[in-house]
Amino acid sequence: MTDLFLTEKEITMSTNGKPVIILKPAPQLRDRIFSPQTLARLKAEFDVVDLEVNPSEELFQQTLPSAFAIIGQPDLDANALEKAQSLKALMNVEGNFFSNVDYPIAFRNGVRVLGCGTAYSQAVAEYSLGLALDLARGISREDRASRRRQERYVSASNADAILLRRATVGIIGYGNLGKSFHRLLEPFNTQVRVFDPWIPNSVLEDANVLPSTLEETIAKSQFVFVFATATSESEHLINSENMKLFQDGTRLILVSRGAVVDYESLLPHLKSGRILAGIDVWPEEPLPSDSPFRDLETVVLSPHRAGGIPQAFYSIGEMVLDDLRLIVRGLPPARMQAAAPELVGRYRNKPVS
Amino acid sequence: MTDLFLTEKEITMSTNGKPVIILKPAPQLRDRIFSPQTLARLKAEFDVVDLEVNPSEELFQQTLPSAFAIIGQPDLDANALEKAQSLKALMNVEGNFFSNVDYPIAFRNGVRVLGCGTAYSQAVAEYSLGLALDLARGISREDRASRRRQERYVSASNADAILLRRATVGIIGYGNLGKSFHRLLEPFNTQVRVFDPWIPNSVLEDANVLPSTLEETIAKSQFVFVFATATSESEHLINSENMKLFQDGTRLILVSRGAVVDYESLLPHLKSGRILAGIDVWPEEPLPSDSPFRDLETVVLSPHRAGGIPQAFYSIGEMVLDDLRLIVRGLPPARMQAAAPELVGRYRNKPVS
Amino acid sequence: MTDLFLTEKEITMSTNGKPVIILKPAPQLRDRIFSPQTLARLKAEFDVVDLEVNPSEELFQQTLPSAFAIIGQPDLDANALEKAQSLKALMNVEGNFFSNVDYPIAFRNGVRVLGCGTAYSQAVAEYSLGLALDLARGISREDRASRRRQERYVSASNADAILLRRATVGIIGYGNLGKSFHRLLEPFNTQVRVFDPWIPNSVLEDANVLPSTLEETIAKSQFVFVFATATSESEHLINSENMKLFQDGTRLILVSRGAVVDYESLLPHLKSGRILAGIDVWPEEPLPSDSPFRDLETVVLSPHRAGGIPQAFYSIGEMVLDDLRLIVRGLPPARMQAAAPELVGRYRNKPVS
Amino acid sequence: MTDLFLTEKEITMSTNGKPVIILKPAPQLRDRIFSPQTLARLKAEFDVVDLEVNPSEELFQQTLPSAFAIIGQPDLDANALEKAQSLKALMNVEGNFFSNVDYPIAFRNGVRVLGCGTAYSQAVAEYSLGLALDLARGISREDRASRRRQERYVSASNADAILLRRATVGIIGYGNLGKSFHRLLEPFNTQVRVFDPWIPNSVLEDANVLPSTLEETIAKSQFVFVFATATSESEHLINSENMKLFQDGTRLILVSRGAVVDYESLLPHLKSGRILAGIDVWPEEPLPSDSPFRDLETVVLSPHRAGGIPQAFYSIGEMVLDDLRLIVRGLPPARMQAAAPELVGRYRNKPVS
Repeated sequence: MTDLFLTEKEITMSTNGKPVIILKPAPQLRDRIFSPQTLARLKAEFDVVDLEVNPSEELFQQTLPSAFAIIGQPDLDANALEKAQSLKALMNVEGNFFSNVDYPIAFRNGVRVLGCGTAYSQAVAEYSLGLALDLARGISREDRASRRRQERYVSASNADAILLRRATVGIIGYGNLGKSFHRLLEPFNTQVRVFDPWIPNSVLEDANVLPSTLEETIAKSQFVFVFATATSESEHLINSENMKLFQDGTRLILVSRGAVVDYESLLPHLKSGRILAGIDVWPEEPLPSDSPFRDLETVVLSPHRAGGIPQAFYSIGEMVLDDLRLIVRGLPPARMQAAAPELVGRYRNKPVS
Repeated sequence: MTDLFLTEKEITMSTNGKPVIILKPAPQLRDRIFSPQTLARLKAEFDVVDLEVNPSEELFQQTLPSAFAIIGQPDLDANALEKAQSLKALMNVEGNFFSNVDYPIAFRNGVRVLGCGTAYSQAVAEYSLGLALDLARGISREDRASRRRQERYVSASNADAILLRRATVGIIGYGNLGKSFHRLLEPFNTQVRVFDPWIPNSVLEDANVLPSTLEETIAKSQFVFVFATATSESEHLINSENMKLFQDGTRLILVSRGAVVDYESLLPHLKSGRILAGIDVWPEEPLPSDSPFRDLETVVLSPHRAGGIPQAFYSIGEMVLDDLRLIVRGLPPARMQAAAPELVGRYRNKPVS
Repeated sequence: MTDLFLTEKEITMSTNGKPVIILKPAPQLRDRIFSPQTLARLKAEFDVVDLEVNPSEELFQQTLPSAFAIIGQPDLDANALEKAQSLKALMNVEGNFFSNVDYPIAFRNGVRVLGCGTAYSQAVAEYSLGLALDLARGISREDRASRRRQERYVSASNADAILLRRATVGIIGYGNLGKSFHRLLEPFNTQVRVFDPWIPNSVLEDANVLPSTLEETIAKSQFVFVFATATSESEHLINSENMKLFQDGTRLILVSRGAVVDYESLLPHLKSGRILAGIDVWPEEPLPSDSPFRDLETVVLSPHRAGGIPQAFYSIGEMVLDDLRLIVRGLPPARMQAAAPELVGRYRNKPVS
Repeated sequence: MTDLFLTEKEITMSTNGKPVIILKPAPQLRDRIFSPQTLARLKAEFDVVDLEVNPSEELFQQTLPSAFAIIGQPDLDANALEKAQSLKALMNVEGNFFSNVDYPIAFRNGVRVLGCGTAYSQAVAEYSLGLALDLARGISREDRASRRRQERYVSASNADAILLRRATVGIIGYGNLGKSFHRLLEPFNTQVRVFDPWIPNSVLEDANVLPSTLEETIAKSQFVFVFATATSESEHLINSENMKLFQDGTRLILVSRGAVVDYESLLPHLKSGRILAGIDVWPEEPLPSDSPFRDLETVVLSPHRAGGIPQAFYSIGEMVLDDLRLIVRGLPPARMQAAAPELVGRYRNKPVS
């Protein structure tokens, strides 16, 4: 039998006896993802060639053949990957896979292509629950009324307030975000429908949700959460046609990608007050100053901030360090997610600027 | 042995063969707590003397001797209770016990004194979680900024954002509200401290929380929830002294009773931004128009609306009906809570106007 | 208003300045329920008149007028209760209420009648789950086969093995035992039906179970747990007629009271192997030596040991001490359960000898 | 960029227009893992070349170039894999990876190497809990006593009975089995320590367990569960030295692989009754007829039956079908587990005969 996959490539050590790491996190920032302590530990255990501090293409090319891992997603075509004979891990620290890497060659060469998407999951899940509870109970709306000296006490401002407990909930997209969010629903005894065409029904049933069509999910849920990622298939997944299926009073939470929803068609539903929405992602960011969404009382406005919080960013650095330590020991990574060869070319997400 | 407590009093039936019920829900409203369906069922199964529709003192006095149950809390002194020889249940539908009833005599006469406090628990618990997530993530603050066209995207407005997951949480008062809220925390893996002088440590340990002093609870929690009811002992429980113990960045959620906190002393902590608060109860309601709390960016303003939502109100009517049916069958009530003889005179809550 | 219920009776102190407690735990044993530490604390804080050590009727009569609480359930007729003018709590430490106390008079006099039934709940719940998993997987059956040198490896002995996950479960009786057990089922994603005629459907629905008739519960469940207590109504609740409704392969767990099931009718169902049972309670105990149940391979035999374990017994003593401390402070008990006046005369349980 | 990994290889269709599947499940059996319905669906959607029915080497070689997937783990050296130009998935249905496949070449060629280990996880987890509750309470021991007419009623046989609630628990190996089992512990409020050298502490902390050394895990746990798989590193992981650290009364549950424990050294601890064990895996199977383990009252004897139950086997067939459907659509598998290139050569498990 051929030698074992990963041990066949020797770990190339730098002259100081440590495995060589290329650090090139752009568009991410080094000090946003590495706390001082994590960075210190990384440098103590690895020979870090920091291309954020010293963005030299020459240094990059020169380091590539000995690099054990790359933190970031620099341009890596087939040629570059062939040069990177010691490379075992390509660690994406931004959250999206772009097409500047020749992933098929990376996979063929036995490079672990790793993503950090789970770093944001809990932050997005908690934020989504916060938006849902706000919409269920009018928290920010009545806060604004209080500042206008127009608040109404006790039941007077609660006519449309509903509980999340035992509500019907729809989740569109049951990936990292959907799963993390679903865990938070557990104490609420909700009835959950999920639409996710990439996941077999059996998996959803084991997760205690009802596998559903998109239309059923929309039509039978008091709360609808859109966690679907942007792909060619998911553009305007929520569109003028299926929007009509929302129940009156539906609470819609949009936190994944703007491309998934047709905002123009959504507007009249929000203007009329037929449905309420918490919106964190927008087709254009910043949202134009004259956007009609800006003054709607039926919307909680949020400037793309569901995921990017300090704890989430720092957890990326910790994930990177934890997994580098495992890979050096000849063990599989345990924190970052292996990119699926089948999916890595499908995503249409853009880096968040 | 003396005949069985409750069967010794025969149920007095009206001429149409049904047990007689006095309905006098003020300051609560009949149609707020009884949905049309529940009211129809109540009338089908009981002979309801509706003193909201017909507020005749004469009718009340005349019905009292045959009344099987009273829905509401009309004045009932020792004399009146002695006349109410058939009375088996006094069903408080407002949420607070006032001193217009001679409770010792009621207990001695074997009248079930029942409260509906649990009706609001889930509503308050969900609202509290909503306030906490808002404060953790700046949801209403950034919504307001967006309306002013001053929103900051992605991480720019997230500098102070924190997760609830694995946070330290303090709960002051572990009664119906505290317990209902605690259930919602389960998926967050928080470390929970509880201060409640009425509950033995063993009960708290079984509930998987750390029994703590008030000072520890304040000092060691990133989120502090005040669920304590108003009693003579709990007035200004949170005061100028122990407020100093709050950590910088603490999120404080006030949803029980205004009397429990010294708001004047709290103000500078909020003005300076040292702590953040979600406040649903106020020392004076409506909050004066010129209250300095009204314009603080560190506060989520809420006009006493955590509990009084339609589902909570209607559940009171359903509780009343469910328990009347049980009591008629000679069974104990299962939904309303038996008032504790030891506590019923201690509460200082006022009806919410 | 009449003085507050419980403070109107002064706490009578003994000459050494402590509240007087009568300790007469029979048929329970003092040292079974009080650990040395708990007993020491009880004696430090109260003036304990120990009638187990000194079973003098005269001492009992002499102490009665000053007794603040009685631990146990000595004979207390109306006369005795009238003499016990300082009595605030009658603390049953055996688990069953017998008819040697005039409960109506006790309630009228404002005596807290407290039970310790919850002390056994977790022990019974865990034991019931153990029996269920044994029956699901043939654990004790194959252990016996191994000792006979007749074990069959891997799948050979697993033909009838089933998972608890996503199974249908029936719970008969949703009191302390049923609720404690139900909590243990949570990670199994089961579908739970409950038959309990004392509890409104709304309570069961809130607990996330399907309220069902007895017949449905029997007919639609792969696992059936009998937690119903013995009353006049529950005798032979599971009888020759409804037993026919059990599905083939049903796992039946009997842990409450022998009177609830018609064992004679059950026998042929077990003999034929149509159903399997874990049986902890028997119509006659000890089970006669020649009982045909003794040699059935379809039964897990258990000699009434589901509840009576050291941790359960010691928790009774801790409950007693915790609640005495609260009652002395004028607070309601928090650990023992207030007996329902409506139910206290209905139970037909006999003390376990 | 090179064409997308998996779409670059066209799916080769048979003449009837379906993707070609080689079915060669030995040592697994076709009809044990495929229910008649699942098999019918598999055959309807794929062109299944059934080498269990027709074990022709010639047919295998002839089908290999057009095979889209292989169900089973036939010998596949580098040569064979190079011939399998259409192969996208190698689906192991036995549970262990053997060295008859050249995995590095398979990975390099972009073949999904998939395992079915999770199929057994729930079965093993439930069985482990069953063994633990048996050991905690003496269920099978007292069943045997009852059959000998030597049972002792109520507390007499409960002297060593303990609760799982709030117990200290050690888990050795936090892979599929450990995780599935841990979920079942949730309602018991246990304190869980985990020893797993392949998993970073951060992952364990997120899972709400205490990362611990092997020695701490053994020394500080009332219940110890061994879920570690057999590798060169894990042989006699539990050995004569660290066994001394078990607390008196420890309940030890062995369900993974016999090689992990030194049974000879374990024997005296069980003979003396110092610890109790539930043992499902043995160094030699069948266990020799004269094994001294066979007659110990401190052991629950189990003939390697924790995982292999009908539902687990049938779920393998369902996983295979679900994932084939996804892979045909160009999506990643969602039910079987991708083998880790780093680990696939490390396992020392033998097929269960």
